[in-house]
Formats: sequence, structure tokens, C-alpha cells
Amino acid sequence: MNFEDIAKQAKNASLEMAELTTEVKNQALLKIADALEENKSKIFEANKTDLEQAKDSVSPSVFNRLKLEENKMRDMIQGIRDVVKLEEPIGKTLLARQLDEGLNLYKVSCPIGVIGIVFEARPDVIAQISSLAIKSSNAVILKGGKESINTNKTILGIINNVLDSIKEFPKNALSQVFTHDDVAQMLKCDAYIDLIIPRGGNKLVKFIKENTKIPVLGHADGICHVFVDESADFETAKRVIIDAKTQYPSACNAVETLLIHKNFNPKEELLNELENAEITLVSNPDTWAFEHGDKTLAYKTVEGLDEAINHINTYGSGHTDCIITKDEQNAQKFMQKVDSAGVYQNVSTRFADGFRYGFGAEVGISTNKTHARGPVGLEGLTIYKYKLIGNGHIVKDYVDGTKHFNHKDL
Amino acid sequence: MNFEDIAKQAKNASLEMAELTTEVKNQALLKIADALEENKSKIFEANKTDLEQAKDSVSPSVFNRLKLEENKMRDMIQGIRDVVKLEEPIGKTLLARQLDEGLNLYKVSCPIGVIGIVFEARPDVIAQISSLAIKSSNAVILKGGKESINTNKTILGIINNVLDSIKEFPKNALSQVFTHDDVAQMLKCDAYIDLIIPRGGNKLVKFIKENTKIPVLGHADGICHVFVDESADFETAKRVIIDAKTQYPSACNAVETLLIHKNFNPKEELLNELENAEITLVSNPDTWAFEHGDKTLAYKTVEGLDEAINHINTYGSGHTDCIITKDEQNAQKFMQKVDSAGVYQNVSTRFADGFRYGFGAEVGISTNKTHARGPVGLEGLTIYKYKLIGNGHIVKDYVDGTKHFNHKDL
Repeated sequence: MNFEDIAKQAKNASLEMAELTTEVKNQALLKIADALEENKSKIFEANKTDLEQAKDSVSPSVFNRLKLEENKMRDMIQGIRDVVKLEEPIGKTLLARQLDEGLNLYKVSCPIGVIGIVFEARPDVIAQISSLAIKSSNAVILKGGKESINTNKTILGIINNVLDSIKEFPKNALSQVFTHDDVAQMLKCDAYIDLIIPRGGNKLVKFIKENTKIPVLGHADGICHVFVDESADFETAKRVIIDAKTQYPSACNAVETLLIHKNFNPKEELLNELENAEITLVSNPDTWAFEHGDKTLAYKTVEGLDEAINHINTYGSGHTDCIITKDEQNAQKFMQKVDSAGVYQNVSTRFADGFRYGFGAEVGISTNKTHARGPVGLEGLTIYKYKLIGNGHIVKDYVDGTKHFNHKDL
Repeated sequence: MNFEDIAKQAKNASLEMAELTTEVKNQALLKIADALEENKSKIFEANKTDLEQAKDSVSPSVFNRLKLEENKMRDMIQGIRDVVKLEEPIGKTLLARQLDEGLNLYKVSCPIGVIGIVFEARPDVIAQISSLAIKSSNAVILKGGKESINTNKTILGIINNVLDSIKEFPKNALSQVFTHDDVAQMLKCDAYIDLIIPRGGNKLVKFIKENTKIPVLGHADGICHVFVDESADFETAKRVIIDAKTQYPSACNAVETLLIHKNFNPKEELLNELENAEITLVSNPDTWAFEHGDKTLAYKTVEGLDEAINHINTYGSGHTDCIITKDEQNAQKFMQKVDSAGVYQNVSTRFADGFRYGFGAEVGISTNKTHARGPVGLEGLTIYKYKLIGNGHIVKDYVDGTKHFNHKDL
């Protein structure tokens, strides 16, 4: 089937999905979790094939992400059951207003429609995204990394078997494509696809953002900063920077640049402590807009708060930035003026994550300035429609002055 | 000054604007209203120059929109004073959550940044958009229709004179560009511009959507439908359709296609009544995705509700669609399954408007599926950031299991 037909089917499915009840969706999710559990060995086998084929051609980190062992499988299945517990995101009344006698306006949350997801070779993502799509009544078209093709096919096959057995569930809600050409077509398919979420490296995200007019939700770079203010507590600074840089250096919310106030006295001591924690310090302006992804940390001495804010707004990626300070006013100014999705005071940048924020699940982290910013949970997969219910109300009466709006919130 | 410099200045201004207090913004708006009042004659004079130059080259409707008389001026100035009364959209706490002891997360509304507005030759728009930008702390770059250049320059000159006199107000918050080349540069300037709002005809909006990777908020088409169900009340159908088609035929929320249930018996009588109201009925599949903009109305007999929904989701533009029915279940199904920004029951499509919805002001109407949908008020000019405040909290403790999240809403 060509891509356009797949996308058209997904669009049709999405229109049906808007009607699914919470009960049907949650039952589907629980059945999927059970089915994956029952078919574990089949999935491990498919994964073994993928691993075998990939072992000589991919980096150890890609290989690790591709590898699905008992622990990851358990988390993946638990993740689906956790989505069941999340609040229903669709059909929420966001506004109820009487415009006039007998004329009531309701703003009601609804699914976005069809979402294209392009992700790397991480087979656990397919279950995570599928469960979020089901819960939010969106159809999805998934394109995973080519190295995980057998695992992905097996997992989505099991999921779709369950969905096919539920009569209320529309066909083709979750589909999968496999080639680069499919991605190229996805980017052009604005007639049927409403949103694209790329999950993966900087290059992939940039390529997608530059080659589509469909809205894209995600982040290309995670150039996060920690600014150590004049009044910073030494231990807090040390603790936070070491966590932000070393706890998981390749994460997008790991710190890349350290800015130190020129009057922060134990500066040399702090830098020594960081080096003791196996952090490689560099002081090179060429790296100010660079995501190292390892234990390298750029640092710069700044004149004060204003220069720090300015540096972050110039070289940062609007992801997550932190001030270490005991000065409440400086903290507030920093958090006000730094134009990032996350602005932190005295805590590690690594907290920028949907699970840690208590969203229960995460589609990704967005550095967009519209729709959804920061860690995106189920809410980011919804939009709203306005329902207006009346009884023969016409605009002419209000333009004539025969009738008047009262705009009373219900 | 070249466009990039203008955009860079706007970006810098936007970062300062995020700090403006409600009081400063409202004082600025009131002073602007007074200054426009005091300088009315200067504005009328500039408008006369524009009208003189345009009179032989533009259509009567463009000429009318360009013309600024006493009434429009009064409404324009009142509009600015009305914006003062609107609730402050910035700095609202949308979520407050304790993640753990001493670790608090706040989701706080903030401005988007720099917004590019491209609009037709309607000088009243410049005051409206400027006041919304000030209230929402966004910087804007305005490009109006070339016919209104003198009026626009005069109005924005007066506004910027006021802003320049307020010391808290950053310079270059509102700027104006004039040429086609400026628009071309705006569309490429994703480094500094966060959102583009085109207001104008289908061609302009389509061109902009197709030529930028910056998010675009707006609508190209307004192909609205009224579906007359089997059980529709005759008088309601007649009233609503006549209002939706004739009250202001060139509006985007005017009805373009009438779908009639095959069992709606007084069909011929209804069509006669519509013709009596000077509506030209056409029954031609070629016009199903066409915005007439005059008193022409396409009509089609359908088998039932499902065909109506399907027709609307296929040929509509996702703007505003209405069912006329006495059957509550059909109404609900229609409003659920029609994938449009506005889904109406027994009321004219012409109600799709920010003022009528009680938003106090309107940036435009969006048929997007992300960020903002339907009539967009101040809220559509905002996004949010996450503020996380702690005391040396690090992620390692939560990964180790030394500490646990409690996720308690505050």
C-alpha cells in the first residue's frame, strides 16, 4: 500500500477514534499489556534477530537501546498499564459559557487527529507511543529505526491483533511504515497528517523541521546551562552540576555549559571538584552552542546575572536552564528572563522529564514556542473544539441590537 | 535597516517585555487610546492620502476596508480601552505541584516572543493587534496592505511615541515593514520570529503556509456547512441558513454549502424561501470545496447524518459547521464526529467570532489542529514555561531509590 493510502486510512480511523469511550480505550490497553506479556518470547526472538543483524554495524549505545531484555520489557508493559490510570484527556470541558439566554458555548478537548512519529531504534517506544495514542484517541503512523524492524513489526502486530478483536475500535488506528521514502512522503502529507513528532538525534529532528509544513513537536538540541551566581552555596552548586552532567550525559536535559559569576570565590575549588567527578572542562567559545552528549562541560566566567541570562538566550536551545543562588531576587529575574521551557532554581536540569513532572507518560520534550513546551504528556496530544448549542439563534439580532450577549460563565 | 536587524531588535524587546507589569501595560494602552483620540485629524489626513492614491486601483470592498471614518476610529479607540479590561494573560499559574519535599514545579503562562503579522489594507487592524501584543507582552512586526501605508505609518508612529515616553517599556516592541521582500524575509526568519499570523484572503494565507517553517496561525478557507436533518424545525432551518449566508456573505464564517436530509420534507419550500432571501442556489459538485464569498449557496441532498458528516470532513475547511435538528442524539453525533473548530447545533455559523464568544478581542480564527483553534483571543498569544524550585535536589537520588516523588498538587 502506498503512503498516501495508509495516511488516508489513518485519517478515517482518527475520525472514528474521537468517539471511543474511556472504558473501551482502557480495556484495549489492558488487553494489549496482557498480550505482550503472553507473547514475550516471540518478541525476544524478533529482537534477537535484530540484534544479530545490527551487532557489527551499530555503536554500543545504539545496540543497547535496541536490546530489549526482561527489565525493559517489564517496564514497557507496566508503562501501558500506567497509561490506563491517567485521567481521560478527551471530552474535558475547558470552558462553559452562556453567550445569551439559551445559547451555550462549550470548549471541549478533542484529539488532534493523525500523528506521525519518527523514532530511532528503540523498540520500547512503539508500545509507549501506541498506548498514548490510544488513550488520547489519536491515530498514529510509526516509523522506527530500521535496525529494530523485526521487533517493531512483532510488537505492533500483537497490539493490532488485540485492537482488531475489539469491535468498537476502528481499523488502521496504528500503522507502521519502514522506509526513508515513507518518511519523505509523510513530511509532504499535510492533507492527512496533523502533527509530526520526531524522537531522536539532532540531525533527524532538524531534517524533519526543515522539510515539512506540518507542525513538528520536539527538540533538536538540548543545550542546557547552569549559572552559579555570586551568592551560590558551594555544596549545592557542586551537587547539582555533577548530577546534571554525569547522571546521564547523553540525555537532552544534561548540562552542557557552566556559567560562573566572576565574584563566586570558590571557583577554582568547584572546577577541581568537577574534574574529580570525571568531568572534562573546556573553555572554548566554539562549543557554546554545542551539545557534547558526554562528560565534557564548557565553562565561562561572566560579569553577572545579566550576562548569564544573555548568554543563555543567545546560545541556548530553550530547553532547561538553572541558576544556583541564595539571592531570591536574582532567582526570580533569571526565571523570568531566561526564555526556556524549563527555568530552574537550585536543582539539577535532569528533572526535565514527563515522568518526573508527574505526567505519567511522555511523548517527548518540546522546545517549541507554540502548542506544547517542555516535557509533553497526554495533554500535548489534544486540541479542542467549540460546541455552540442554541435554538435558532442568529447573528443579525445581535448586530441589530434586538438581542445582547450576556457572556456568563456556567 | 534590513529585516534581520528589525527582527533581532524585536527579539530583544520581547525578552524585556516578559517582565512588564500589568499596570505598565494597561497605562500604556490607555495613553495610546488618548493619543490616537488627540491625533485623530492627523490620522484622517493620512487616510485621505491613501484613499486618494487607491481610489482608481482597488475594488469597492478594499476601498471600504481602507477607509477610516469617525465610527471606525471610535470603535478602534474603544477596542484598545476594552483590551485594558481583559484579564492579564501572562504570569498565570496553570499548575503548581510538589514533586517531593521542598521541590516545587510551577507551570506559568508567558508570552510567545516575536509575532509577525501580515494583514490586508485595514488600518484599524494595526491598533487592534498592537494593543493585543502589548497586553500579552509579545513583540510584533507588522506588515499591512500597501494601500494603507500612510495611515499605518501615522497610527504606529503615534503608538510608538507613547511607548517611547514610558521608561519601563522596551524599545522596538512594535515595528513595521512595508515591502514584499520584507515578507519573504520574515518567512525565512525562524531564528527570531516565533509565530506568523496572516490575516487576509485565501491566497495570502496559503502562500505564507507554504513558504515558511515558522508556525502559522490562521485559516485559508472558510467552507462552512449547514446540515438540515430529517427532524429539523422548518423555521429554525430557514432563519439560521438565511442569517449564515446573507448577514455578511464575505465573512469566513458564512455558510457555503447546505446539506439536506433526503427525508426532510419541506425541502422545496425551504429552497424557495432561501431564493426569496436573494440567495442563489447551485448544485454542482465542483463548488463543494469553494468559498463563494457572496450570496451563492451550494446545496446537496444526502442520505442521512453519516453522509453529511463525511461530506463535511471531506470538503470542509474545519472552520464552523452546523446541524439543524430536533434529534438530540444526532446533534451529539454530529458535534462529536465533525472535525471542525466550531460544531454548532441550531445556530448560525456567523457566531464563530472572538467577540461573540466573549473573548473581548480576536487575533483571528484558526483552523489549525495545534496550539489554538477557532476564534483566537489573548490566550492564543501565550505559551508557558516550567519553573522548578528546589534546594540542591538531584536526579541521582530518585534513580537510586534514596528519594521518591510524591507528586502532590499544591
